[in-house]
Amino acid sequence: TGMSETFTERLRSLQRDKQTALCVGLDPDPERLPDPLSEMEPLEAAREFCLDIIEATAPFACAFKFNLAFFEALGDGGLRVLREVIGAVPENALTIGDAKRGDIGNSARFYARALFDDLSVDACTVAPYMGRDAVTPFLQRRGTAAFVLARTSNPGADDLQTCTIDGEALYQRVGRLTREWASETPADAGLVVGATRPDAVARLRELCPALPFLIPGVGAQGGSLKSCLELGTTGEGTVIINSSRSIIYASEEGDYAEASAQEAERLQQEMKYYLAE
Amino acid sequence: TGMSETFTERLRSLQRDKQTALCVGLDPDPERLPDPLSEMEPLEAAREFCLDIIEATAPFACAFKFNLAFFEALGDGGLRVLREVIGAVPENALTIGDAKRGDIGNSARFYARALFDDLSVDACTVAPYMGRDAVTPFLQRRGTAAFVLARTSNPGADDLQTCTIDGEALYQRVGRLTREWASETPADAGLVVGATRPDAVARLRELCPALPFLIPGVGAQGGSLKSCLELGTTGEGTVIINSSRSIIYASEEGDYAEASAQEAERLQQEMKYYLAE
Repeated sequence: TGMSETFTERLRSLQRDKQTALCVGLDPDPERLPDPLSEMEPLEAAREFCLDIIEATAPFACAFKFNLAFFEALGDGGLRVLREVIGAVPENALTIGDAKRGDIGNSARFYARALFDDLSVDACTVAPYMGRDAVTPFLQRRGTAAFVLARTSNPGADDLQTCTIDGEALYQRVGRLTREWASETPADAGLVVGATRPDAVARLRELCPALPFLIPGVGAQGGSLKSCLELGTTGEGTVIINSSRSIIYASEEGDYAEASAQEAERLQQEMKYYLAE
Repeated sequence: TGMSETFTERLRSLQRDKQTALCVGLDPDPERLPDPLSEMEPLEAAREFCLDIIEATAPFACAFKFNLAFFEALGDGGLRVLREVIGAVPENALTIGDAKRGDIGNSARFYARALFDDLSVDACTVAPYMGRDAVTPFLQRRGTAAFVLARTSNPGADDLQTCTIDGEALYQRVGRLTREWASETPADAGLVVGATRPDAVARLRELCPALPFLIPGVGAQGGSLKSCLELGTTGEGTVIINSSRSIIYASEEGDYAEASAQEAERLQQEMKYYLAE
């Protein structure tokens, strides 16, 4: 897996080769699995579902994002299934553990170990509220990355993220701090910026010209693909555009894998078009 | 377990009966386990260690806090061990899953399910950065509680938490928002305030007279027990004072359980003295 390259270098070369910025988000909700899987034992159904979606959509994706909430909620064996499906992602796609962890240094080191050493993800997501020593333990392995939550796509995001501090929004301060932490650690840092916030994509790109952005919220949450790509990919900037529900739940029937591939290909073609512009 | 009572009512009556505000924090670090356990298989060693500490310290504690980082880092079976040791906590002590989760509503509901339904904790910790819809899914079960991170005890806490917004610190805004969310949901909400920040304990107690505070950082982190109790327990206010390392690693030898009980009893006696004042 080319550990001498940085995460961002691997991402750039994958995006160039496969002509895609698409990340497929795997959130296996037991109540939304397609009909043919609904009679299976929950762990086995989640496993089968993820393996099928990964195989079908891999040609169109540069990354897969795994939301740990859904695997933890499966109870015993949930993390074993997660490790197995992460292992099934082909070499030409990166893996992101969407864990949003954030704890003091000692605990953060253990969370980082669980993600990078036990689950073997290439990147993870991290929460910034506790500051530097809660984030930098996730930035110690060259070749990997941690994406720090900056501006999220959910309704409650305005409760804190847009509060003004010394003339800038809290999320901008998070961007500047992340840039600083990234410059002092062996791994790459990136930012999570919701697709429903194109203004934040633009402002954070100005502040952090070289950091990769992980952009969720295209698809079910309604964010615009075009503006995220245009605003996020200036200069050295790369973006990873995540779509979860619109891809993985594209069909409730036996054709769910084909349907997910169709939706992933549709998004990839749209991205290719805008990226070429 | 008296589900008709609220979490805070149960906490108050336990604290009165047992004359203690002590919470024992279980962070089983495989590299710090006592010598007699060091030859055992890691999962079994963590299990044995936690069960011994719980049994030895339960008479002096109103709660046990389990840091999920350490159990997740154990790999397969880590959460099974966690569920088992949570189940071993006697009826007259509450259990807190220290998970610091924070994600959009749909994911938050799955994290809440993993904590309250699968692990069966009485309370958990939650990160506020994503706002209302990331926190309120943890406040849906009457009899339980979610403690929202407000002012933490770690060095990086100042990166964001003390930033000034409209004349108040960010952590004070978190306190006010939490009070608001608590008033609209069936469960109880509380705040996490580090013992190394007595000024924040005082300010948050003014803003939130009735919310329970979970106060880590006494012991290894150096916070003052006396000032936290004095400042935190005015009016209706209750506090839970957590100590992890100073109790669970009180001895590296075969007497670790007795040593942890001694340290827990010492803290309980100190608390009893200050609470009686």
